[in-house]
Amino acid sequence: MLEKLKEDVCKANLQLPEYGLVTFTWGNVSGIDREKGLFVIKPSGVSYEELKPSDMVVIDMDGNKVEGDLNPSTDTPTHLELYKAFPEIGGVVHTHSTFATSWAQAGHDIPLKGTTHADYFYGDVPCTRNLTPEEVDEAYEKNTGKVIIEAFEGRNPVYVPGVICRNHGPFAWGKDCFQAVYHAKVLEEVAKMDFITKMIDPSAPDAPEYVKEKHFLRKHGPNAYYGQGKG
Amino acid sequence: MLEKLKEDVCKANLQLPEYGLVTFTWGNVSGIDREKGLFVIKPSGVSYEELKPSDMVVIDMDGNKVEGDLNPSTDTPTHLELYKAFPEIGGVVHTHSTFATSWAQAGHDIPLKGTTHADYFYGDVPCTRNLTPEEVDEAYEKNTGKVIIEAFEGRNPVYVPGVICRNHGPFAWGKDCFQAVYHAKVLEEVAKMDFITKMIDPSAPDAPEYVKEKHFLRKHGPNAYYGQGKG
Amino acid sequence: MLEKLKEDVCKANLQLPEYGLVTFTWGNVSGIDREKGLFVIKPSGVSYEELKPSDMVVIDMDGNKVEGDLNPSTDTPTHLELYKAFPEIGGVVHTHSTFATSWAQAGHDIPLKGTTHADYFYGDVPCTRNLTPEEVDEAYEKNTGKVIIEAFEGRNPVYVPGVICRNHGPFAWGKDCFQAVYHAKVLEEVAKMDFITKMIDPSAPDAPEYVKEKHFLRKHGPNAYYGQGKG
Amino acid sequence: MLEKLKEDVCKANLQLPEYGLVTFTWGNVSGIDREKGLFVIKPSGVSYEELKPSDMVVIDMDGNKVEGDLNPSTDTPTHLELYKAFPEIGGVVHTHSTFATSWAQAGHDIPLKGTTHADYFYGDVPCTRNLTPEEVDEAYEKNTGKVIIEAFEGRNPVYVPGVICRNHGPFAWGKDCFQAVYHAKVLEEVAKMDFITKMIDPSAPDAPEYVKEKHFLRKHGPNAYYGQGKG
Repeated sequence: MLEKLKEDVCKANLQLPEYGLVTFTWGNVSGIDREKGLFVIKPSGVSYEELKPSDMVVIDMDGNKVEGDLNPSTDTPTHLELYKAFPEIGGVVHTHSTFATSWAQAGHDIPLKGTTHADYFYGDVPCTRNLTPEEVDEAYEKNTGKVIIEAFEGRNPVYVPGVICRNHGPFAWGKDCFQAVYHAKVLEEVAKMDFITKMIDPSAPDAPEYVKEKHFLRKHGPNAYYGQGKG
Repeated sequence: MLEKLKEDVCKANLQLPEYGLVTFTWGNVSGIDREKGLFVIKPSGVSYEELKPSDMVVIDMDGNKVEGDLNPSTDTPTHLELYKAFPEIGGVVHTHSTFATSWAQAGHDIPLKGTTHADYFYGDVPCTRNLTPEEVDEAYEKNTGKVIIEAFEGRNPVYVPGVICRNHGPFAWGKDCFQAVYHAKVLEEVAKMDFITKMIDPSAPDAPEYVKEKHFLRKHGPNAYYGQGKG
Repeated sequence: MLEKLKEDVCKANLQLPEYGLVTFTWGNVSGIDREKGLFVIKPSGVSYEELKPSDMVVIDMDGNKVEGDLNPSTDTPTHLELYKAFPEIGGVVHTHSTFATSWAQAGHDIPLKGTTHADYFYGDVPCTRNLTPEEVDEAYEKNTGKVIIEAFEGRNPVYVPGVICRNHGPFAWGKDCFQAVYHAKVLEEVAKMDFITKMIDPSAPDAPEYVKEKHFLRKHGPNAYYGQGKG
Repeated sequence: MLEKLKEDVCKANLQLPEYGLVTFTWGNVSGIDREKGLFVIKPSGVSYEELKPSDMVVIDMDGNKVEGDLNPSTDTPTHLELYKAFPEIGGVVHTHSTFATSWAQAGHDIPLKGTTHADYFYGDVPCTRNLTPEEVDEAYEKNTGKVIIEAFEGRNPVYVPGVICRNHGPFAWGKDCFQAVYHAKVLEEVAKMDFITKMIDPSAPDAPEYVKEKHFLRKHGPNAYYGQGKG
């Protein structure tokens, strides 16, 4: 079942090492079929060199494995929470990419310092709070999803397609698994440039509000004029 | 029309990923035919892997598309302003390269710290001011060109073949599209080394004026003696 | 003798340049056959391009060469001390990898800042004290092993499978030579991210104790649930 | 003439891009035949992709071109001064490698922070003073050699086979052109690690004197025991 989606999700997973976003098996991508209410995710701890579409695991919206010989990624319950809370998204990715993870370890939001950021993320990329000991004990991966959702109260997940989880690393998402990986790469590049910016001048102001507006709306919404159009 | 120039501009665009200056489609190169009053530029949002000479777009000096099936880069009006204001230049490049962009996000000129810089840029690489909200609203990309030109009042654009746009990223130029890309790479390397220099010692003085003079004139002007000569 | 182990140790040594952990010959891997009481180690100063299984040197538990045409790594007495003190380990690796070595040069333990670290190292990665002039004179490489062992008083070497030697560089170990190299790579990535974290916010707290517990035990011990299980 | 040396010097030049030490043509290697009193050096401004042994230029000890169709590197007079002042050396290399150049731009000696440094450089790598305006005017490249030699008063150039020239970049040398390039690579790696060390802890002390002694003498001199011996 879902053979095309398995191929896509496998291919999107293979983009993680290609884009320099993972070491060893430290990342996973999923993609969802909203009509069927099923999503496809990377198996746990399998190396990218040997990954093939038939290894992908199919999960239903209660978190049960529906198909697949292997165990799904341990982060599966986090992906599930995001799919349930953000109905507009079609793909989710988690990595431990170097710079985004470092901001997460520092516990700071990634500030909007320039147009590279503004082209894809409409505002700061938030850093979640830490889970409480009780949340860790009860259901660690599920509650990781819950604190992400909490961080998006008052934020539009389509306008800010990523987050960093405190002391952990980034999650990103998009309309499908490929756009999710694209956003994960943008997030890493932005995290890198914002780090260097902060080193050059810790008191440099963020980009002005009207630059943020302009750049995001140049690429998104009814008046977008970047690229080759939709039709 | 302009088939040779299209080939050159396409090839120069492909140097951007080769030199590590772009992620995804975050860069564009153009080249001008001064006699015909036409320039050739990369199409908007097309990935480098699939770029070919016939995709290039031909633009006239009023900014109208003269030939090409695709939309030109959204930065086309900025290229146009630079060609109009700086008659000596034959190629323009824009990237979001990591270190030059970080200096732009910090809002600092890139200081002349050593001979690598002095060999190509006669003085600091200036950082433009931000556009006003009105300039953004009225004509964002055109006014990006205008503030670059403003930053070059009192500067020779042939002697300082690049700039960083505040909260945005670098533009560089040269006698043709290849030299423009060459200068964009130099600018990135200089931005990287100046960042590290500042980290090692934030109060390290700039290179002395007479070193700046010596190195630039060793490579440029009537008494240049670097390389294999012109004739 | 030990032909299979020589092949493994040779292969594990070749992973060092593949993983970006060594420049020139600045690294070595060994693996032990506990039953025979012999270990196999890289020869000294031989470049990775030309390394082959038959170059490997066999050493007994008194540090004597038992087989091999070449001199063993100068670090052989350090490997020997670790094998003697930590009976659970089957492989040892030493490198001068960039970020782990820099923490060693700074003389600081590598702090537990996030889950990447917690997944493999149960607590800070300790930095040893310097050897005394007498310890250097008497038996430098052997005493390098001794100060590592001293740093592990009260620490479980299976739970913290690596160390940084002050003003020198990292050693890592594992159940076999491949896991040792794996841990050396994790250590380098963690050292890099902890460096960036410290630059972003020098006063950022370490990851909470319960996150440390959760992540390590998610991958290790009787209730581990990461990966595809043991059988 | 000197066909074997031209081949070696050409090959050593090609190691510069291979080792990541140069951008474009920003580097050059030479090698000397002490008996004939001639040295062979890279031509000026020729790119590495097209470099071949027959492009190499032969120079005598008065700095005159003896053979070759192309102009020699503009840095030729610096190489000449080093060969004249340091009779033990057989090869010289100059680069603008990122981290060594950044220390030069900051105007600081590269401190001995660890054993990687101590294995090859017996003490700090000195940063020269700037040339005076008069020295620049009179004979810039020759006087660059003179200030290097001045920095080595009281230092053994065989024990410290490299230097950084203020606001410029590194020179390194060795018994032949290959060892010179090897030392240039070590210098860059050490410069990188010392930068990170300084960022982690600006007040971290240098490596103790007895560690410096031990490591250098482990690899050099009559009691050296690293590697496979000399015969």
